[in-house]
Amino acid sequence: MLAFEKSGGLIPAIAQDADTGDVLMMAWMDKEAFEETLSSGRAVYFSRSRKRLWRKGEESGNVQLVESIYIDCDADTVLLKVRQIGGAACHEGYKSCFFRKVEGEELKVIGERIFDPASVYSAKKIS
Amino acid sequence: MLAFEKSGGLIPAIAQDADTGDVLMMAWMDKEAFEETLSSGRAVYFSRSRKRLWRKGEESGNVQLVESIYIDCDADTVLLKVRQIGGAACHEGYKSCFFRKVEGEELKVIGERIFDPASVYSAKKIS
Repeated sequence: MLAFEKSGGLIPAIAQDADTGDVLMMAWMDKEAFEETLSSGRAVYFSRSRKRLWRKGEESGNVQLVESIYIDCDADTVLLKVRQIGGAACHEGYKSCFFRKVEGEELKVIGERIFDPASVYSAKKIS
Repeated sequence: MLAFEKSGGLIPAIAQDADTGDVLMMAWMDKEAFEETLSSGRAVYFSRSRKRLWRKGEESGNVQLVESIYIDCDADTVLLKVRQIGGAACHEGYKSCFFRKVEGEELKVIGERIFDPASVYSAKKIS
C-alpha cells in the first residue's frame, strides 16, 4: 500500500486535526508504525532520534485517535486525520507544532500554549 | 531559520489550501527552494527525481501563491498556506494529492478530479 523502500524505509506522516483542519505535526513512519497505526487506531510514528517506534502520547497521555487515513498519489506520504487528546500535539505545549509564522526575517509565535511542557514530561524530552 | 543539514539538505514542505484547510501535497525543499519561495511568493520545491528546483506549476501554469509560511518546533518542516491556481495541486488532476482513503485493505478514491492530466502535461510527467 505504501512505498517505504523509496525513502530508506521511512515516509512522512502528516497529522491534521479532524475537526478544525489544523495541521498539527509531521513525523515519520516505518512499515511497522503504519501497521500498528492501522490496527490500534492510534497514531504510531518512528522516532528517528530514538530509533524506535514512538507511540504518540506514550508518556504524556496525549494520544492521537485516528479518524481516517489518506495516501498520496506517489504512495510515499500519509495523511492522518486525528483527534488530539489533551488538545496539544506539540511537545512544547502548543496545539500545533507549526506555532511559528515567518514574518520577513523573523519568526513570530502565533500558536496558543495549551500546557507547560515541564509539568507533563520527565527530564527526557518525549511526547 | 531552518535545519536543512539535519536531513541531508532537504526538508518536508506541506502545502495547505489557505481557504479550506485541505492538505494539498507534501514535497521537499532545499535552502534555495525555500529562499525562492520567500522571495517570489510562489511555492518552489526541490524535485528529488529530477534533482533540481521545481517551480510548482512551471509547466501546467497551476502555481501556488503563498499566503503564509509556518515552521515547526524542530525547524525541520515547513507548512505553506497557499492559493492553488487551477484548483488542482496533484499532477493526476485531483485537488489534493491525498485523494485516496484507506478503507480496510483497500484504497478508495475520494477526491474529485479537476482536470485530465493528458490535456495539461506533455509526455514527461511534471507538475
